[in-house]
Amino acid sequence: MLLFEVVDFDEGRDDSLRITIKDIAQMANVSVSTVSRVVNNSKPVNEDVRRRVMEVLKKTNYPPRIVANQETARSLIGVIAPKNSSTVLDDFITGIQTISSVFGYETIITLSDGTEDTELQCLRLHADMGTQGVIFIGNQFGKHHLNILESASIACTLVGQISEMPSVPSVHVDNVSAAYEAVTCLIHKGHRDIAMIRAGGDMPVGGHRYRGYRQALQDAGISLREEWIVESEISIEGGRIAMQAIAETGSLPSAVFCSTDGMAIGAMNYLLDNGYRIPEDVSVLGFDGSFMSTLVRPQLSTVEYSAVEIGMTSTRNLIRKLKGAADVPQHSNVTYHLVLRGSTK
Amino acid sequence: MLLFEVVDFDEGRDDSLRITIKDIAQMANVSVSTVSRVVNNSKPVNEDVRRRVMEVLKKTNYPPRIVANQETARSLIGVIAPKNSSTVLDDFITGIQTISSVFGYETIITLSDGTEDTELQCLRLHADMGTQGVIFIGNQFGKHHLNILESASIACTLVGQISEMPSVPSVHVDNVSAAYEAVTCLIHKGHRDIAMIRAGGDMPVGGHRYRGYRQALQDAGISLREEWIVESEISIEGGRIAMQAIAETGSLPSAVFCSTDGMAIGAMNYLLDNGYRIPEDVSVLGFDGSFMSTLVRPQLSTVEYSAVEIGMTSTRNLIRKLKGAADVPQHSNVTYHLVLRGSTK
Repeated sequence: MLLFEVVDFDEGRDDSLRITIKDIAQMANVSVSTVSRVVNNSKPVNEDVRRRVMEVLKKTNYPPRIVANQETARSLIGVIAPKNSSTVLDDFITGIQTISSVFGYETIITLSDGTEDTELQCLRLHADMGTQGVIFIGNQFGKHHLNILESASIACTLVGQISEMPSVPSVHVDNVSAAYEAVTCLIHKGHRDIAMIRAGGDMPVGGHRYRGYRQALQDAGISLREEWIVESEISIEGGRIAMQAIAETGSLPSAVFCSTDGMAIGAMNYLLDNGYRIPEDVSVLGFDGSFMSTLVRPQLSTVEYSAVEIGMTSTRNLIRKLKGAADVPQHSNVTYHLVLRGSTK
Repeated sequence: MLLFEVVDFDEGRDDSLRITIKDIAQMANVSVSTVSRVVNNSKPVNEDVRRRVMEVLKKTNYPPRIVANQETARSLIGVIAPKNSSTVLDDFITGIQTISSVFGYETIITLSDGTEDTELQCLRLHADMGTQGVIFIGNQFGKHHLNILESASIACTLVGQISEMPSVPSVHVDNVSAAYEAVTCLIHKGHRDIAMIRAGGDMPVGGHRYRGYRQALQDAGISLREEWIVESEISIEGGRIAMQAIAETGSLPSAVFCSTDGMAIGAMNYLLDNGYRIPEDVSVLGFDGSFMSTLVRPQLSTVEYSAVEIGMTSTRNLIRKLKGAADVPQHSNVTYHLVLRGSTK
């Protein structure tokens, strides 16, 4: 927390040591707003006046970025996301920018390659940029992430996971319940042979959605068939390969539930390319409500939630934290609903 | 260009006025690397030492971001892209980050909403962040964009358009030639009734691809049919609506060339949903080689080029400009090729 006093320009600083934009205005014999115009190059300024201000800035050794931070307040929210999230990233960003701009924040985005190392690198970059708050979409948020945030006194909210840190609120969809309801709905429609193409690990997309699937089968008295539960990369190609593995077990399920829409579309393509009919032979159900789900034929049934809403809620919570609110909920869920289309019967 | 001397830490500064990280190390009686560790919080430092360094930093009024910029060099490349570009943005960014990291640059991304106003806002933000170079994907790059870059002494390369500014190199695919070849290929396959669903405007995606289409028909002695040339939003839904307009003219073309894969998929979906067969009744040809082209059935024929290569080339050119190279080409084209799949016959 030591860096705090140096990084933050509103609190903890020793004013007696610091030349302010007002001092510069006085030394250059101009108004504060003129200094601001020169520094930010925001509006035309008489060339002589500009030169005078620049000379004072130079003499006092005040880089404009710092002056800008002090007086004209670039309020920044950083977003860290993995590169492969682009099919929902647009919607997240739309939500984030909608709320950010209401409160006068600007958004800068860094993309990790999905590893913790590159995530930490992104966090350090945001810290150096003077970002006030970060919205983190990625791996399990852990101690290393927190250390960087705390050193730089940056607030953070998590998207797509449930926070285990009291100081870091999170927003997502209740993946266990959503998957449970979706699979239960398949069961109600008469399916008993339901496979799952799941992402690996304990994170929501893999672990939680799988947990909902397993619970739904158990509650319906249907036993799990291990050979029908196949782990896959989170990709279209991963879904295709996993569907092939399921088909090659020799017995075909009547329905396949997939961790993501992309994986489901890969599964659909394996089936269609190999002469199976959807949904007559196999029903396919995805998760995410991505734009891809309406783009394929038959259209993909999916669990839909609003990534825009997630972006908005996480940004609202972040800004409330930045403003010192003590009642930001540790975790917020956004709503979801099952959308049945042509890929399921 | 006046801000240059203050913004840039390597050139044009007056060293006699500036306290360097070396001065701070000397004053705190530690090594330069220890100061760097404290400032960047990069490695553990003895608590007493840390406190001593922090006191000097505070006394000399040196914010760590500036120190970091001087000595531990956060070299930044900014990317400005419109939000709706996400289907190719991943590949652009992959190319940009691959080359950036080779040369020690980090990447920050800002998304505009596709208007010039928000683009200029993004540019100003990058200027304030101390970004050394910007890769610009968006509207026609004009005088307003250039003014901001020059004031902040930021280098820039353009993606997806042909630069008209000598100081700003650009990279893209030769859209006129690529569209010309693609449509000529349809003609060679026996098509003479070829419609186009085009994006509006004079920019490459709309204007240049349309120009190639028009030239190909003219060179083959086929007259243009205005009712078969329909302007559309750059979106899947836009393509669907435009295809409906073409179908409702009462005479169906045997092939439709579209400005983008997304528009082509919208056109395909209109046709499939209304009982037309692809390619038996209508062939559909897209442009971009996006991941969506292999995801639909039948798979979409398209003009493929490498967005990764565009990202890499634009970044190489940018970094060469940053290093002062005088021989960066004003415009570079990346290669393209026509990929014929199930959607055309």
